[in-house]
Amino acid sequence: MTDLAALIPRVLAGEPRAIARAISLVEDETPEGADLVRGIFSHTGRAYLVGVTGPPGAGKSTLVDRLTAQIRSSGRTVGVIAIDPTSPFTGGAVLGDRLRMNAHAADPGVFIRSMATRGHLGGLSRATGDAALVLDASGKDIVIIETVGVGQDEVDIIRTADVSVVTLVPGTGDDVQAIKAGIMEIADIFVINKADRDGAERLSAAVEANLALHHYAPDEWRPPILKTIATTGQGVPELEAAIAAYRAHGATQQAARRRTRSAYRLRELVSQRFLAHLERQVLRAGEFDALIDRVAARELDPYTAATELIARALASR
Amino acid sequence: MTDLAALIPRVLAGEPRAIARAISLVEDETPEGADLVRGIFSHTGRAYLVGVTGPPGAGKSTLVDRLTAQIRSSGRTVGVIAIDPTSPFTGGAVLGDRLRMNAHAADPGVFIRSMATRGHLGGLSRATGDAALVLDASGKDIVIIETVGVGQDEVDIIRTADVSVVTLVPGTGDDVQAIKAGIMEIADIFVINKADRDGAERLSAAVEANLALHHYAPDEWRPPILKTIATTGQGVPELEAAIAAYRAHGATQQAARRRTRSAYRLRELVSQRFLAHLERQVLRAGEFDALIDRVAARELDPYTAATELIARALASR
Repeated sequence: MTDLAALIPRVLAGEPRAIARAISLVEDETPEGADLVRGIFSHTGRAYLVGVTGPPGAGKSTLVDRLTAQIRSSGRTVGVIAIDPTSPFTGGAVLGDRLRMNAHAADPGVFIRSMATRGHLGGLSRATGDAALVLDASGKDIVIIETVGVGQDEVDIIRTADVSVVTLVPGTGDDVQAIKAGIMEIADIFVINKADRDGAERLSAAVEANLALHHYAPDEWRPPILKTIATTGQGVPELEAAIAAYRAHGATQQAARRRTRSAYRLRELVSQRFLAHLERQVLRAGEFDALIDRVAARELDPYTAATELIARALASR
Repeated sequence: MTDLAALIPRVLAGEPRAIARAISLVEDETPEGADLVRGIFSHTGRAYLVGVTGPPGAGKSTLVDRLTAQIRSSGRTVGVIAIDPTSPFTGGAVLGDRLRMNAHAADPGVFIRSMATRGHLGGLSRATGDAALVLDASGKDIVIIETVGVGQDEVDIIRTADVSVVTLVPGTGDDVQAIKAGIMEIADIFVINKADRDGAERLSAAVEANLALHHYAPDEWRPPILKTIATTGQGVPELEAAIAAYRAHGATQQAARRRTRSAYRLRELVSQRFLAHLERQVLRAGEFDALIDRVAARELDPYTAATELIARALASR
């Protein structure tokens, strides 16, 4: 049992160990995690949420580390949630955490947490959203969420951040084609990292050509294309400035995104809690498994099974 | 209105236009889509489901085209579902469809469908699963699902296929590091495509080194590492042979995967249908939106809101 009455004030005071404990509670989908979010929720909504995404190998971790240092240089505090793909071979998220913590370990104004992707339906974005709430409640001015790839959940997480930074990297020619379909649409800011590599100009021109296909109204935000070399820090002050410019520009857009984020989160929670209610309160032990066996054996189609399950739940009250 | 009584026999007969119409129905989340799945479900379970994934630029589309031709050469029929990231700039999935159809357009034994990723919670894997059922019911011997990336939904789709093929490509040095964390765990077969490029041997050695960390029991499947050049077709017969070997090896594993797929699908459908019931039958018009506004304004926390919504639904009956 966790003493939430003691934990919550420590989270609100920004104590790193309390923050770590609180994130573990929400990550593990415990009832205490839900109670914790209830307890801190009225203290959230102040942090600015920065989403950073891009393909594997784009140097996102290094860029986020540099951006964190840049933001810290003006005294503001930073929370980072790095979503790492889990691997049974390498230990995934745990290893990532250790490597990352080194750079900012001595700084109480920075809290970094790696989270593993989960097999759960919809679990990733709920856990990420709750972890962001914890960091927000702990008083972090900026919360950065970093995730790889163009996966549906991952894109939804980044898309509903207050600002979305899409990181690209010069590479083989066909990358340009492959990348643009997936992430042109979600970027508020483009970053071409490893900009000293061959192909940076070509990649920049390809992104620019895609932007040129879209007609931007005079007062509409047109995503800038920045060039960075994260390993040296080059271009990182410009990235911070672009984030600030977007924030200043997009007050109404921000309200709309926060609303979308709330809707997304509420639907997800309702789904998860209804399933838990159904499996634990309504059905007998083994009954859900028996139903799955019948679907797997093609004796019962999943739509009919779903309809029956919902009817059972509604009738059980 | 679609005349399902007329459509279903045409799907079962393998008519391409009927298959296309049926997939559109399940993709659009219409009630008719659910009825269609009900009508064809007892005719499914015969196709073997091949999942193909990998990073952008790995040449997956070309590989899948070649693999399709290879399978066709022995007379078996093939359905392909290519999940493309949507883009408002390029038209995404539609363009992909047109480019792909050319190669097999004259062959009635091949049906290829590109599907766009959706913003819906959990919608992608449900739609993909239902489309695979349509192709299965239409008599296709092999159904290939191709998707980019290491996203949670995308990985779940590939992981619950009967066999999972992970495609890698030699490239920059840090790709090796970035790739291995995400997809080592889901591969039944590794394919190093563009194997004539520099770095192919190094990439192969890196994958091999990762496999060596895992202890395989004598009767356990150890993922082979194949080398292909999809543009010339080199290595594609070996890929088909590896898929056949895995299929012969993994009868008990296949039953377990199909069970996982059924469980995943059933939970997803229950979630979606409960939300639809809640929003359309239980709540008054605008009520859900008003609740979201209160959550976005931090007046009400999402866990309390979710609990209240479920209680409302259960009490409404």
